[in-house]
Amino acid sequence: MAETAFDALMAHDRATGALREVAGLLSWDQETMMPKRGATQRAEQAAALAATIHARDTDPRLGAWLEAAEASEHAPESVRALALLRRRHDRSRRLPARLVETLAAKTSAAQVIWADARRLNAPADFLPSLAEIIDLKREEAQCLANGGSLYDALLDDFEQGLTMTKLKPIFAELRAGLTALLAQILPRTEGQTAAFCPVPAAEQLALGPRIAEAFGYDLAAGRVDLSVHPFCSGSGGDVRITTRIDPEDPLTSLYSLIHEMGHAVYEQRIDPALRGTPLGVYASMGIHESQSRLFENQIGRSRSFAVWLHREMEAAFGPTGLDGPDALWRSANRVTPGFIRTDADELHYNLHILMRTDLEHALIEGDLDVGDLEAAWNDRFAGDFGRTVPSPADGFLQDVHWSVGIFGYFPTYTLGNIYAACLWDAIEQRLPSLDADLASGNLARILDWLGRHVHRQGARLTAEALIEAATGSGPDAAPLLSYLAGKANTLYPA
Amino acid sequence: MAETAFDALMAHDRATGALREVAGLLSWDQETMMPKRGATQRAEQAAALAATIHARDTDPRLGAWLEAAEASEHAPESVRALALLRRRHDRSRRLPARLVETLAAKTSAAQVIWADARRLNAPADFLPSLAEIIDLKREEAQCLANGGSLYDALLDDFEQGLTMTKLKPIFAELRAGLTALLAQILPRTEGQTAAFCPVPAAEQLALGPRIAEAFGYDLAAGRVDLSVHPFCSGSGGDVRITTRIDPEDPLTSLYSLIHEMGHAVYEQRIDPALRGTPLGVYASMGIHESQSRLFENQIGRSRSFAVWLHREMEAAFGPTGLDGPDALWRSANRVTPGFIRTDADELHYNLHILMRTDLEHALIEGDLDVGDLEAAWNDRFAGDFGRTVPSPADGFLQDVHWSVGIFGYFPTYTLGNIYAACLWDAIEQRLPSLDADLASGNLARILDWLGRHVHRQGARLTAEALIEAATGSGPDAAPLLSYLAGKANTLYPA
Repeated sequence: MAETAFDALMAHDRATGALREVAGLLSWDQETMMPKRGATQRAEQAAALAATIHARDTDPRLGAWLEAAEASEHAPESVRALALLRRRHDRSRRLPARLVETLAAKTSAAQVIWADARRLNAPADFLPSLAEIIDLKREEAQCLANGGSLYDALLDDFEQGLTMTKLKPIFAELRAGLTALLAQILPRTEGQTAAFCPVPAAEQLALGPRIAEAFGYDLAAGRVDLSVHPFCSGSGGDVRITTRIDPEDPLTSLYSLIHEMGHAVYEQRIDPALRGTPLGVYASMGIHESQSRLFENQIGRSRSFAVWLHREMEAAFGPTGLDGPDALWRSANRVTPGFIRTDADELHYNLHILMRTDLEHALIEGDLDVGDLEAAWNDRFAGDFGRTVPSPADGFLQDVHWSVGIFGYFPTYTLGNIYAACLWDAIEQRLPSLDADLASGNLARILDWLGRHVHRQGARLTAEALIEAATGSGPDAAPLLSYLAGKANTLYPA
Repeated sequence: MAETAFDALMAHDRATGALREVAGLLSWDQETMMPKRGATQRAEQAAALAATIHARDTDPRLGAWLEAAEASEHAPESVRALALLRRRHDRSRRLPARLVETLAAKTSAAQVIWADARRLNAPADFLPSLAEIIDLKREEAQCLANGGSLYDALLDDFEQGLTMTKLKPIFAELRAGLTALLAQILPRTEGQTAAFCPVPAAEQLALGPRIAEAFGYDLAAGRVDLSVHPFCSGSGGDVRITTRIDPEDPLTSLYSLIHEMGHAVYEQRIDPALRGTPLGVYASMGIHESQSRLFENQIGRSRSFAVWLHREMEAAFGPTGLDGPDALWRSANRVTPGFIRTDADELHYNLHILMRTDLEHALIEGDLDVGDLEAAWNDRFAGDFGRTVPSPADGFLQDVHWSVGIFGYFPTYTLGNIYAACLWDAIEQRLPSLDADLASGNLARILDWLGRHVHRQGARLTAEALIEAATGSGPDAAPLLSYLAGKANTLYPA
């Protein structure tokens, strides 16, 4: 039986997908396991693999197979799969092999340089690498933009079809809403305190399996390690997460675990029937982030879930210094204008993202020089948060993204919050008596709902279509603002 | 300036080499870090990467470049580099892509099946995989053998130019010598005992850095993890080793660490100027093994080094139950016909290898059916060691090699012992007062000598030429037999 063009395409992409997974493993290893002196050769390995993947994605046979396959009738899922392959092929063909290879090598090397610069608070060590990466990303964007906005071309890689034109009104609405809410709430937060006992790192990690069990993270298909910047990596039967430990504050690691498990559970639960096909991946980075934020915030930081979590913490750690579940809930939701995005409360979190979005937009569009980045960051931070950034590590060096060439990704964090609030609204409407589930750590009904409407879907639908199919209406910032206002007013009543 | 064919070849192979390193990392990860449910997709990843590497090694441009480069005059090192590339290209072209890919997928999957079968002592679970792998390896050998011996074709992959015709007289001499020596020594070993205190795993591992320091293993370019079967993986700035811990017997892990460090130090110390070229790799597997065995035995199990090691053990573990360095030396050299190769004393070790060589030779040549392997193993073991194999895990399931498709490798262990004894003879002749160095754990002079004559050389010379250049005469089993006889008679005087 002759292989059809469609079958040839799918088989080709399946092997390329396996190599993409290998590239993911290289990054995971670099952040968790790789010895320091391996950095130089790792950059060569990453470059060789990126070049291989790019060569496969631009294989001239793909063009012919795509044309032949597109000319035939297909079931809707196959049509969607073809569209995704077409998009990747067309994007890849715009990028010169040399650029892809150079970017892979430079960003692999820059990760180590960034981590050292951050640790030593020495931005000058990192700026030359960052400047080089921004130049390369601008070059990439020029190849992809077709004369349009450079930043939009990068955005599209993480959230298909997203543009700054679409994003600006949403972010403006959010910014206005958050600013008003903070003006109302912040004065009421004076005098709030947090009280924890220090918990040794090993004990903090020992609670991981209980959390995993509650959230449905299958540890036989994953693992938990430490890294400077927590992340999730992998797919299917091998989805790994990392966390970082603050011995003074066990909540840091707990909520970072819950967040990364949100990503991981999504990857683990994509319909196995889709595995190895273009649909067997996440719908968009915004949807990915919605799962981590929903786990972390709507579930993890809810008043009811604090009942279960407090009990588990006391069982694992002994006395925590937290006087009951409500004290845990208040500690986990303290509103405070901190410097670090990943530690931010839900009200400030999106201000961090809005700021990074504007800064990276300016960097990519050529409106901000890398030499002026630190000052621009610090100015904007002072304006938005009313505090002076004490050091680069607490400022523009805090996030890994730019060092690994990830520009256009930050907005998907806020999109994720928006999607999460939409999904949570739907869950609350459809599943009665959720508080009892949350208080007993029984997330089965929530996981089942998310599994059916989000996880199992893979990339069958675009992000917008997925939200609409799951909730009955398209994504919208209103549910997020209303969720945040409701929670803030319960925590800090007038 | 136009790129010469030689330069094109070198650049091409450098990138392929980076991908080979990635393939090595996939295996390392599989044995140390990968979650259980990742096995299926890992097999796909390994297959996709193997296919990529094979496609690069058979790239038709290589043939033209090789012809053009071979037609020009070159310095000796470049001639050698060309010869190594020619060999790889010619070998690769004989192997169909489908076979390479299938072997990578099957052996990746079989590793997990083997580990489970070994743990559960359930050989039937593993035999179908093994049968499949042997069929594939026979097919590979047929492609390579050019009508000659199948097993020789596989041997040549690990030790260039080695054949059973060359090996048989050497192994026969060794077998005769060892059998005579054991007949003499074994009666004198009656009543020997070993005495250790149990040492918790974490404490055993904590001694690792001290051992690494003594043996020159740079932990900033390496790391130590646990695995079922200890191994070394990687090159240059990223050379990782594994060990396994027996809480009842700290010597298991110590000597496995020292052994793997022998491999690792070799890889770390190859001349950095050769890195990324065809010469920037080990000379042969036999030479590789000579470095691990020399570290483990000639140094690690010497009477003088026991002085240092005993002091370090007592400092790290507290009382070991060993009454002084000589008790440690005796314990580390106990002669006993055990079932497990990796735990074997120096006298029995090579009998294990001779047995595996004959069995795998028969499997590959089609003279032994996989269904008869267990019985053949147990019969031969009873004959050579005078004991009945109690279980498959203590018998033919003990080693990882066959599950990962490694046939023709076992003989290099004994070649390594032969080479190590030749090198140690030369070291003892050239470096006076070695005992003082060993007793103080100061291995600088030995490492310097090995660095100049072995490590830094990379693949500049073939194994035989390297031994001849280093010692003044070609490899020969006599130094090994004389070393073993001398040591055995000191340990167990008549």
